[in-house]
Amino acid sequence: MHQLRKPYLLFLGDVQLKSDAKTAFGLRDWCRDDVMGEWALPAATVSLDLPRHSPAQAAAMGAGSLVIGVAAVGGVLPEHWLGELEAALDAGMDVVSGLHSRLASFPRLVAAAQRRGARLHDVRHSDQVFPAGTGRKRSGKRVLTVGTDCALGKKYTALALTRALQEQGCAATFRATGQTGVMIAGSGVAVDAVISDFVSGAAEALSPDNDAAHWDVIEGQGALFHPAYAGVTLGLLHGSQPDALVLCHDPSRKTIEGYPGFPIPDLQHAINRYVEAARLTNAAVRCVGISINSSSLSDAQWPDYAHGLSADLKLPVVDPMRGGVRAIANVLLAS
Amino acid sequence: MHQLRKPYLLFLGDVQLKSDAKTAFGLRDWCRDDVMGEWALPAATVSLDLPRHSPAQAAAMGAGSLVIGVAAVGGVLPEHWLGELEAALDAGMDVVSGLHSRLASFPRLVAAAQRRGARLHDVRHSDQVFPAGTGRKRSGKRVLTVGTDCALGKKYTALALTRALQEQGCAATFRATGQTGVMIAGSGVAVDAVISDFVSGAAEALSPDNDAAHWDVIEGQGALFHPAYAGVTLGLLHGSQPDALVLCHDPSRKTIEGYPGFPIPDLQHAINRYVEAARLTNAAVRCVGISINSSSLSDAQWPDYAHGLSADLKLPVVDPMRGGVRAIANVLLAS
Repeated sequence: MHQLRKPYLLFLGDVQLKSDAKTAFGLRDWCRDDVMGEWALPAATVSLDLPRHSPAQAAAMGAGSLVIGVAAVGGVLPEHWLGELEAALDAGMDVVSGLHSRLASFPRLVAAAQRRGARLHDVRHSDQVFPAGTGRKRSGKRVLTVGTDCALGKKYTALALTRALQEQGCAATFRATGQTGVMIAGSGVAVDAVISDFVSGAAEALSPDNDAAHWDVIEGQGALFHPAYAGVTLGLLHGSQPDALVLCHDPSRKTIEGYPGFPIPDLQHAINRYVEAARLTNAAVRCVGISINSSSLSDAQWPDYAHGLSADLKLPVVDPMRGGVRAIANVLLAS
Repeated sequence: MHQLRKPYLLFLGDVQLKSDAKTAFGLRDWCRDDVMGEWALPAATVSLDLPRHSPAQAAAMGAGSLVIGVAAVGGVLPEHWLGELEAALDAGMDVVSGLHSRLASFPRLVAAAQRRGARLHDVRHSDQVFPAGTGRKRSGKRVLTVGTDCALGKKYTALALTRALQEQGCAATFRATGQTGVMIAGSGVAVDAVISDFVSGAAEALSPDNDAAHWDVIEGQGALFHPAYAGVTLGLLHGSQPDALVLCHDPSRKTIEGYPGFPIPDLQHAINRYVEAARLTNAAVRCVGISINSSSLSDAQWPDYAHGLSADLKLPVVDPMRGGVRAIANVLLAS
């Protein structure tokens, strides 16, 4: 399990495209209180509109980690970023990366980290050995976001739901299962990087026994209908042993993204399949609502779509970006 | 993908219990033509009744690999075995291990391998990077063994089925997905050791395009009803894109082994769940038969059990150890 040291200084490299800085914007938006500022190389043209601090300045102000908040070409860490990362380590900060390249594969960084006892976190990778899943029922309550596809709002929905529960005075914890989620939460595990035999065990470790009224809001991964990643989804589902599922969906997608031969399933079918699979480790599981990424719908279209779907499925239908997830949080609070 | 060099010299260490030499017996029984002989330390009391050759003798006779055919306490390679392994490497043979300990973690073995250009194979581990699954339909035919639990005959059934197909003049290849299977086949991948994101991609790589009439007989892993390993099972199922499934079952088991809270599913339910899941990557998939591990039934009980089950499920029911798998091979040959 990664345990990251906050607050963060967000490093933007020499980013030119806003879309390449998705991670940095996500961190700014979802854990603003944990972000001290931003830093970039002179060539960068994108800014988060946060205070600018050099690594040395940020460290002096108490920053815990420099977080690489941008995608690099091919996921490879460019050589000319190393100086700034080394400066952060020399100032006593940890460095956090979600790139394919491992920080530990750069001798300069390893040496700098050793000099100051700082840590290198590659959140895309998981070097921890997890035990196999046990299926043992744990105390506390759990909700897992699942999807009709990848990359349509499972993380965003889980974060919004955590916030909505907390705003109602309910003890709730976001449990991160992907790299950006881990950076936001400051802890968690990228389950898709875990050895396949131990995915459900990792999910069990991620959401341990808790107070009876506490909700773990677990970020889902992949989709049961995805030809590449359904195994990850199922292992996470079984290990999470959720009491509640929230199904995430984007009505503009007709097929699995990048897999044109694989249709997005009907929503009632998707619910049935997820509930059936989840019953293995929690017989009481139920789907409590639908979270829609409705960016393809106009303001005029959205209410009709949401009401129609809600009437069909007899479940609350929300879009976290359009009115929030309160309707689903209320179902959880009442259960 | 591991590619092992045959023929093998089977190394038994100082084994005292036949059950600890399960791998060696399996190799003797399933690839006898590839096994040149056995070798053990003086303290060993178990024999495979094969010719005894020292590593140097075996190498001189053309052996390709010394295979560790015994389990060691805790999966750890004992220090006092290293001399024999080093002798094999020094004679130019590769060394193959299914232990938890990695051969490459012993500097003596690494140095010896480098001296002679020999290779160290840890078949329990997978260091290969696989691409994500694509879901693309491949040419050739595929049958996958699936189960109501782990460790009830999926490998054995796949091996027997491969042999039965070949005996009928049909081109068929056993595709190994676990460590003993990899040793028997001389190639394959331990899918439970693959990073979870790439399990279906590894299964795709394991069973590439082939002649239209060729059967890949793929060794299944885990079970969809297993709280720890269902994700591995699903990823393997999707990547294998089987045309046919054979369900393996042991009627003496009432619950998943080691998981007393998890019942073994009804067989028709199990078939339905496997077929439903497999349809994602092959809409034409069907279950073609049931393979029973009937060791708990008497010779008098077995025919009644098999006939009753066959009538209920309308499928051939076989036990590879009691009459063989010909009835299922015939279904494949007719399709």
